[in-house]
Amino acid sequence: MANLTESARKMLEGKNFVYLATVNPDGTPQVTPTWVDTDGKFVLVNTAIGRVKHRNVKKNPNVALAITDQNNPYNLVVIRGKVVDQLTGHVADEHIDKMAKKYRGLDKYPNRSPGEQRVILKIEPTRVISR
Amino acid sequence: MANLTESARKMLEGKNFVYLATVNPDGTPQVTPTWVDTDGKFVLVNTAIGRVKHRNVKKNPNVALAITDQNNPYNLVVIRGKVVDQLTGHVADEHIDKMAKKYRGLDKYPNRSPGEQRVILKIEPTRVISR
Repeated sequence: MANLTESARKMLEGKNFVYLATVNPDGTPQVTPTWVDTDGKFVLVNTAIGRVKHRNVKKNPNVALAITDQNNPYNLVVIRGKVVDQLTGHVADEHIDKMAKKYRGLDKYPNRSPGEQRVILKIEPTRVISR
Repeated sequence: MANLTESARKMLEGKNFVYLATVNPDGTPQVTPTWVDTDGKFVLVNTAIGRVKHRNVKKNPNVALAITDQNNPYNLVVIRGKVVDQLTGHVADEHIDKMAKKYRGLDKYPNRSPGEQRVILKIEPTRVISR
């Protein structure tokens, strides 16, 4: 496990998007922007069960993410890591509302589809690079 | 080959960063932000020979890239594709200067290391998704 640097923590705590890369079952890469959170040690990404990135990390838990400061795109943190846990249910539901608050100032996440189940991907950083 | 949509072309022509994902030889993903260009059909990324993304696409030409509008991060284009050609020498040198002009208003790319050789990765889109 690698420690998050001070600058990595600040970037993850800020209203910055993270670009999360996973590997598809056929060995090709996949990348999407997503909201992000941290507890200071792990990187937390909230997605919906069944989405591509969730399906991918079930088979291959390795991820990479890049995050740039929205006020300065040349301020960059890259993190390599592994999904070591997945949290569902109430904790994931509350967390997506917390993310909606952080990024959009809303009390509740507004984009929920009927039947959608949220999941927090808990990512252990294995390498943290700030530039 | 997939056609670039009008919105994809505009995003690639704009001063937006693209987040390019490749796969490392050990099967883990890699992602970095980079400047980007298009000739209308292919996606063009200029990197230096020997960098991680260049080494990766030599072994596994599959890439994915996500690009969001700097003025609206919810405006997203995701492209999957394959590196079908690599252009080096004079054409790659001129192209990195063109990129420095586009993104930073400079006549010459200022960050060149001694001995660095530039290469244009010519990416054929196989799937283009706008959201």
